[in-house]
Amino acid sequence: MKRRLLLVSNSTLHGGGYLDHCQQQITEFFGKDVRRVLFVPYALHDRDAYTKTARNKFQTLGYEVDSLHEAEDPVRAVRKAEGIFIGGGNTFRLLKSLYDSKVVMEIRKRVMEDGVPYMGSSAGTNVATISISTTNDMPIVYPPTFAAIGLVPFNINPHYLDHDSSSRHMGPSVLSPSTSTLITWTTTPAAATWGRPENRGSRSTTKKQTLQVCWV
Amino acid sequence: MKRRLLLVSNSTLHGGGYLDHCQQQITEFFGKDVRRVLFVPYALHDRDAYTKTARNKFQTLGYEVDSLHEAEDPVRAVRKAEGIFIGGGNTFRLLKSLYDSKVVMEIRKRVMEDGVPYMGSSAGTNVATISISTTNDMPIVYPPTFAAIGLVPFNINPHYLDHDSSSRHMGPSVLSPSTSTLITWTTTPAAATWGRPENRGSRSTTKKQTLQVCWV
Repeated sequence: MKRRLLLVSNSTLHGGGYLDHCQQQITEFFGKDVRRVLFVPYALHDRDAYTKTARNKFQTLGYEVDSLHEAEDPVRAVRKAEGIFIGGGNTFRLLKSLYDSKVVMEIRKRVMEDGVPYMGSSAGTNVATISISTTNDMPIVYPPTFAAIGLVPFNINPHYLDHDSSSRHMGPSVLSPSTSTLITWTTTPAAATWGRPENRGSRSTTKKQTLQVCWV
Repeated sequence: MKRRLLLVSNSTLHGGGYLDHCQQQITEFFGKDVRRVLFVPYALHDRDAYTKTARNKFQTLGYEVDSLHEAEDPVRAVRKAEGIFIGGGNTFRLLKSLYDSKVVMEIRKRVMEDGVPYMGSSAGTNVATISISTTNDMPIVYPPTFAAIGLVPFNINPHYLDHDSSSRHMGPSVLSPSTSTLITWTTTPAAATWGRPENRGSRSTTKKQTLQVCWV
């Protein structure tokens, strides 16, 4: 089964509205077959307000939104999902809540075995990787592990910027299967030790997108 | 017993050598009574090299350095210490190693009950607080808890900079009991929620020092 992932670095681009910068990618990604998207608002404190924001935006794109925090049985909600979107916020809060509601393995199963499309933004991109060990967020809560959903065989720092003083890149990166040249990785990732830049794996930089990939 | 703490934000200042910017505070802090300082190199991967750096610097200031990683019995080494210095690096690696070697409570006891002077820099300042929840470091290893040594009743982000576009502050902060006006706190800290700037507690900014204090 081919996994389908849309991993976005930021939910907003300076001066733009929520998900405005990647709305074309979103509609291409979920397509016509998906009618309802299961939204995961766990990364922010106010889940109701966050769901409202996501719901309003997705409705303008033609999708209804169910929020995981409104589901009586979160695991069952994931089992029924046509598409999944995990929003950004604090990565530690998000990962802890995913484990608290026992949906980590179910999301992995749906994406890896059933081909359910998964969209993540910022923290939602972090938790799609092997672990959250490359997040820049502060550890405000203590998750049971740093291991994440593991939909890709590497870690991502969605807010990484090259130390290029001439760069004017201030915006988000969008990484999708349809633009897979943005990222390069081998199918047998090598071991890497953090703190050794020469081992940090491949890095892909285009004019508008900057992404750090770290083998773990 | 009065606790004696010298909490430094950075080990180097741009253009200067290791601990050059605070060497006067170091000699004032440890004084003449302390002859040997117990150094904790756990925050960096290469403990031997880190110890050599610290040892060389402290010898120029008149102090011998014993390193915790060279001790056969780390707890016993803390029990015998005249002064303690925990260096910077990765806060998660540091905290995990402190717990692995079972010295967290012993350091706390020596500082809080015996008045042993404690110096921390960067990550060594983070672990002196209630928890490491305000670190900017990446979670490269998984400590058994985020709770830290708890020598002060609040958290510190040693690398915090105000979003002041007119500021030219690029250097470290030095916080010591002798300059306690740099930081303000109440003896009964209020609860705060991260992500709500209005609740983040007191903040102290001087021309050369910038520090964020967060009630937890």
